[in-house]
Amino acid sequence: MDKVKVALVGFGTIGSGTARLLLEEGPRVARAARRKIELAYVVDTDLTRKRNVTLPKGLLSNDYDRVLADPEVKVVIELVGGTVEAKTIILRALESGKDVVTANKALLATHGPALFQRARELGRTIAFEASVGGGIPLIAAIGQSLATDRIELIEAILNGTCNFILTQMAEHGLEYADVVAEAQRLGYAEADPTLDVNGSDTTQKLAILAQLAFGAAVDWKEIPRTGIDRLTPADIHSAEQMGYAVRLVATARRGTYGLELFVSPTLVPYGSQLAGVEGAFNGIRIVGEPIGPIFLQGYGAGQRPTSSAVVSDVIDTASGRTAITFAAQGLWSGEGVENVSVRDPGEIPGRFYLRFDVKSQLDAVAEVTRVLKEHGASVDTLVRYDDEADSRRAALVIVTGETAEGNMKAAVKQIEKLPFVRGEAVRCRVGE
Amino acid sequence: MDKVKVALVGFGTIGSGTARLLLEEGPRVARAARRKIELAYVVDTDLTRKRNVTLPKGLLSNDYDRVLADPEVKVVIELVGGTVEAKTIILRALESGKDVVTANKALLATHGPALFQRARELGRTIAFEASVGGGIPLIAAIGQSLATDRIELIEAILNGTCNFILTQMAEHGLEYADVVAEAQRLGYAEADPTLDVNGSDTTQKLAILAQLAFGAAVDWKEIPRTGIDRLTPADIHSAEQMGYAVRLVATARRGTYGLELFVSPTLVPYGSQLAGVEGAFNGIRIVGEPIGPIFLQGYGAGQRPTSSAVVSDVIDTASGRTAITFAAQGLWSGEGVENVSVRDPGEIPGRFYLRFDVKSQLDAVAEVTRVLKEHGASVDTLVRYDDEADSRRAALVIVTGETAEGNMKAAVKQIEKLPFVRGEAVRCRVGE
Repeated sequence: MDKVKVALVGFGTIGSGTARLLLEEGPRVARAARRKIELAYVVDTDLTRKRNVTLPKGLLSNDYDRVLADPEVKVVIELVGGTVEAKTIILRALESGKDVVTANKALLATHGPALFQRARELGRTIAFEASVGGGIPLIAAIGQSLATDRIELIEAILNGTCNFILTQMAEHGLEYADVVAEAQRLGYAEADPTLDVNGSDTTQKLAILAQLAFGAAVDWKEIPRTGIDRLTPADIHSAEQMGYAVRLVATARRGTYGLELFVSPTLVPYGSQLAGVEGAFNGIRIVGEPIGPIFLQGYGAGQRPTSSAVVSDVIDTASGRTAITFAAQGLWSGEGVENVSVRDPGEIPGRFYLRFDVKSQLDAVAEVTRVLKEHGASVDTLVRYDDEADSRRAALVIVTGETAEGNMKAAVKQIEKLPFVRGEAVRCRVGE
Repeated sequence: MDKVKVALVGFGTIGSGTARLLLEEGPRVARAARRKIELAYVVDTDLTRKRNVTLPKGLLSNDYDRVLADPEVKVVIELVGGTVEAKTIILRALESGKDVVTANKALLATHGPALFQRARELGRTIAFEASVGGGIPLIAAIGQSLATDRIELIEAILNGTCNFILTQMAEHGLEYADVVAEAQRLGYAEADPTLDVNGSDTTQKLAILAQLAFGAAVDWKEIPRTGIDRLTPADIHSAEQMGYAVRLVATARRGTYGLELFVSPTLVPYGSQLAGVEGAFNGIRIVGEPIGPIFLQGYGAGQRPTSSAVVSDVIDTASGRTAITFAAQGLWSGEGVENVSVRDPGEIPGRFYLRFDVKSQLDAVAEVTRVLKEHGASVDTLVRYDDEADSRRAALVIVTGETAEGNMKAAVKQIEKLPFVRGEAVRCRVGE
């Protein structure tokens, strides 16, 4: 049986899980790859921290050059994260004739075009199943199994931290900050969860899916994005009253005027598949032609599920499947059969949930609805919740009729300037 | 760009959909396969029936020999169905140096070992994504993406006809026969739906998954199987009262004493993923280590979803991915790292739902529970439903504690012989 040496760079949580899987499941991995996969190097700057795997002596070092100089190493697994160092690690691997496996969504969403271009020039490959949806095999599903299909819609919950926070807030009526603390304690949220809760992580993943499913090249920073960090238990309760659960949803929707991409807390109807995604799970709904709707759910993060996806990429790369897939997909090459244009974010239509905290006064409702109307947004539902602790204060909760993202943004900005409005509004989208 | 000729044998519902997709989505298919896929032959015995696709002149014939004699044909798509003619078609294709794509679960569940052995001897491949779960890419998910994982459990709804019938009965309180007629009118059920409703189709699919996920070689006829054809609206209503929906579930569960395989109408708790699978959909829940639980849902049958899976197999085969996967999996070769032994069906434990139609008499309940107890089955719930039309008749609905399949079978047989019991019992399993 042939043997392939692989090197792992980045010995953190996912790195430890990946090392363990490669060391403990050798026969299973070898069978699937039809060759022995030998974990030959583990590289990290931190050589002393305790991890939950014991490496054979001599495997761990901080010397990446040694990996690059070893011609028997065919695959480099990049699990460093971030967009600077990781980029260098990957480029150097490619230039040393090694294929790459990565779980790094921030990197692909930022430097995907340059990295994939370089890999193509060098006749090498990059595999990235673990970058979106953790263990859920959605990159394989969209990129291979659904290659025949014209994808019309992707609606997905892609951040387990946010989903855990939202479902905990709903279940226990807890404040956002308290749930974040609990999530950190359980290891579901990072010490600094900013990139999760402000929607950046989800948006980066959406940018990758937009390229994979639609051939759309988009800078993730240009995708309209709203996080969950301003939601209160009152918002979740109001949504419940109207028959909705609140989820952070990434949407890619093929429309007449181009691909509509956005990330927003979204009111999803009870009984819908996305409402059924609870806790730290991810879920992705894909509608394609001729396949119809399909739905995938699983753990979107965490050491063990993610390491399953990483090792499955190692198997695909070592066995030669990735080379075929990588060449066929031509990602970020602009040469696919589909290069769907992206619609101007300001024009993307939708219905919106809004909450304004106001000082109680007679004309508050009239004023707010007037501004909405001026921006083309009708009011489908309006409920005033008086503040129980302070009778001079209230919250106005509004669900609008369909209007464009840009109009809604402008209307909210103008309403926030009204003298009786306190602080910033909360804005969600309303799903179907 | 290279070109690969493919031939389609069996121009029925799925065949027409596949032909249409290959003809209409040429550029998309060519890009994914990195070569032009030319539908060069369509073979069927019926040359006159109207189909919903127009073939180029000269494509359709009843001459399979012409296909076998054309060395440019690299892939034969078998969509004839059944286990006799289809087997010959596939063997002749393999022997003529052609790879095979098939959607034929009955054939694989019956002759899988012989066909795969022959393909290996001849250096050819067989791809079968469309044979289980229609458009849902579950063969790829289990066989490739989850190749690293140790699968512990598969629980799946694999027959859209049965699921449509069960959910319609639940929603409208209709009799089984009426719903079957409606399903036939809508094209969801065959003229003769026996193999669907008696669970054979589901069991054949389970046998394929047992091989793919566990390396277990099992004759599908030896898997314990109960169909849905004896269920009444009263059963579904009773289940609802206890908080369950009824689904036809195929289970493959790794236990201490071997792989437990069974197909049975099953009471699944409301709110569970399987209960959420409605209408003609299929759903599959897989629990693996380290991936954790994942869930896939989509159309498990129908012309368009199934043709998506067939063409995705054609792409994989033409591009070379299937050759890698086929060699690595070694299906039905007995040479996998896992050859999980199958547990004696009679020993498989579970809780059961039973309904006995009885003549009302004082000691009926005592007698029935006595026989159950003698066979080691406790009674967790017992409800007597008096027949509104005939006060001398009643139904006893029982949910048992955990007992073994064999004991339960014997107990039911004995109870059916009691003088006050009318006809055969209804038996379901109770899920968790």
